[in-house]
Amino acid sequence: MNDEPDISRRGIMLVLSSPSGAGKTTLTRNLLEQENIDSPGKLALSVSATTRTKRPSEIDGVHYFFKTNKQFETMRDHGELLEWAEVHGNYYGTPREPVEAALAEGRDILFDIDWQGTQQLRDKMPDDVITIFVLPPSAPELKSRLVRRAEDSNDVIAQRLRNAAEEFRHWNEYDYILVNRDLDKSFARLRAILTAERLKRVKMPNLNDFVDKLLNELKGLTP
Amino acid sequence: MNDEPDISRRGIMLVLSSPSGAGKTTLTRNLLEQENIDSPGKLALSVSATTRTKRPSEIDGVHYFFKTNKQFETMRDHGELLEWAEVHGNYYGTPREPVEAALAEGRDILFDIDWQGTQQLRDKMPDDVITIFVLPPSAPELKSRLVRRAEDSNDVIAQRLRNAAEEFRHWNEYDYILVNRDLDKSFARLRAILTAERLKRVKMPNLNDFVDKLLNELKGLTP
Repeated sequence: MNDEPDISRRGIMLVLSSPSGAGKTTLTRNLLEQENIDSPGKLALSVSATTRTKRPSEIDGVHYFFKTNKQFETMRDHGELLEWAEVHGNYYGTPREPVEAALAEGRDILFDIDWQGTQQLRDKMPDDVITIFVLPPSAPELKSRLVRRAEDSNDVIAQRLRNAAEEFRHWNEYDYILVNRDLDKSFARLRAILTAERLKRVKMPNLNDFVDKLLNELKGLTP
Repeated sequence: MNDEPDISRRGIMLVLSSPSGAGKTTLTRNLLEQENIDSPGKLALSVSATTRTKRPSEIDGVHYFFKTNKQFETMRDHGELLEWAEVHGNYYGTPREPVEAALAEGRDILFDIDWQGTQQLRDKMPDDVITIFVLPPSAPELKSRLVRRAEDSNDVIAQRLRNAAEEFRHWNEYDYILVNRDLDKSFARLRAILTAERLKRVKMPNLNDFVDKLLNELKGLTP
């Protein structure tokens, strides 16, 4: 949104967290699609490093950066990961370097991660991370969304609901709260947050030069 | 924008500052009109107290709170003004009480004031004030807007340009920067800022109760 010709911008790390069923995945996908139409190349989903086996449909560097255990542990031990976790015996993490490169070039990065990853990101990049928590309008509505999408067995749905309680307890660590009652409205609000955050003064590192130019021009106009 | 049935909201003090000619007055008027259509009663322009003489068209309590010098000085000395200034021998200031009432009721207040008033507001209400600085795309464009609106003599325009330089020097005290190159785009950005600020977690004082309700509902769903 800062498409000013003379003004550079530092990118934003936009984090969305929520329990499954609150609508985060749909919001994330819609945001990426719409932004790709309106300002191509300005917003991308974060690409994680992982030690799990590559599936045939996956492309290294696009879906994941595929690493051996040793490579992953070296990255982790050298501070090259902004956050990491072990899930079902595989490592997952966010490499620092592509994030730093994107921010410096004024590109924003979207993260779809849980409260634990969010805490790690915020600790490492406190000035760059903007966090949004997506809440369902009610727990029965959350459950009926999980049932309606018909992806999971009853046991898995029960587990997701138990996990939801854990996730909910961290709502008050987030900057913005979206109660996702209506997807269109929530999507408009999500876009407003991104638009607004891009207009923060601290995100425009050379604004000083722009104002100096204005002041010099003014001198010429007021003899 | 937070029209959630169960979630209360604390209002925002939204401050716009800029030199004349940058477009602040048009943006302010358009925002009030549009918000009045979309969410009536949720955004109003701040009403100042003043000691200047009431004009026949003006209504006390709507356009200004008209005060005697003694009344104004008493308010000021009792901390009942959030900011004040003396201009051409008259006092102008923002009474605290109507602002506090609006914020507690979840209504937002718009302020069209200069950097000095902004500093005073921020000192008094640091958690409630959101500030936006509107910049013109260039100084020649600023001048041509002043000339085009044909309200002022050449002398007044020259004075406005000299004042602009003073105002510009305070750009870096503001939260958001709008470079007003295109009015429609700037207006959309201004609305996005208001929408986003209304979604800040800290603006929803009883969100805790809402999440507690979700957690209780969840318990009932996961035996």
